[in-house]
Amino acid sequence: MSIIHRASSGGQGELRWQDVLVHAYGSDNSGADGVTRQILLGNEEGSQNFHLRYFAIQPGGYTSLDQHTYEHGVYIIHGRALLRLGEEEHELGPGDVVYISHDEIHQFFALDIEPLGFLCIIPAQR
Amino acid sequence: MSIIHRASSGGQGELRWQDVLVHAYGSDNSGADGVTRQILLGNEEGSQNFHLRYFAIQPGGYTSLDQHTYEHGVYIIHGRALLRLGEEEHELGPGDVVYISHDEIHQFFALDIEPLGFLCIIPAQR
Repeated sequence: MSIIHRASSGGQGELRWQDVLVHAYGSDNSGADGVTRQILLGNEEGSQNFHLRYFAIQPGGYTSLDQHTYEHGVYIIHGRALLRLGEEEHELGPGDVVYISHDEIHQFFALDIEPLGFLCIIPAQR
Repeated sequence: MSIIHRASSGGQGELRWQDVLVHAYGSDNSGADGVTRQILLGNEEGSQNFHLRYFAIQPGGYTSLDQHTYEHGVYIIHGRALLRLGEEEHELGPGDVVYISHDEIHQFFALDIEPLGFLCIIPAQR
């Protein structure tokens, strides 16, 4: 069944959607700080091949230092990021697209005075 | 190998990226009009599980009436859309997310005076 998640307001600089839960991410000693995650397309939507998530990071926050057996697709919506990607660092802004291949070490840091927000696509089976 | 596609300018209301080709879509009597497509993550990037494309539709334009054996994930970036989804019509704006399940009939129409732009995720194997 097809599903529409409509954008809503009230996220204080982060995006929100009707009927989509906001999860704190990194409150479990994972090494992340100031990060929220919303699952836009996942198991609940019945998506069999890919999942789509939105991450928001408050200024000065960061995701955990990650390395996976599967790839990511990333689209920056708002804010500015410093991305550690393998041995390199890249500054990213709105509209930039990143393909993070499997096994590549990666970590996002939020720069600037506004929250960083990006879409992240991953395989459904992982 | 990981890859970054940096956003660029000059698209006259459509988004552009460095080193990403812009394809006219619908010039082949497919039933679409005023549509361009850019493949942000595809075979060239080595993406094995999902592909990511950006579609732009000029005001009054539309995609072809489509029905596939695979699902789509859609994120509206700019402009306003009228989406035919099965027997229903939905108006969509920036930030709205749609999961179009396999076999669902769908067609996007661009409303307003500005171009419609959206991300579309599909399985790599289809």
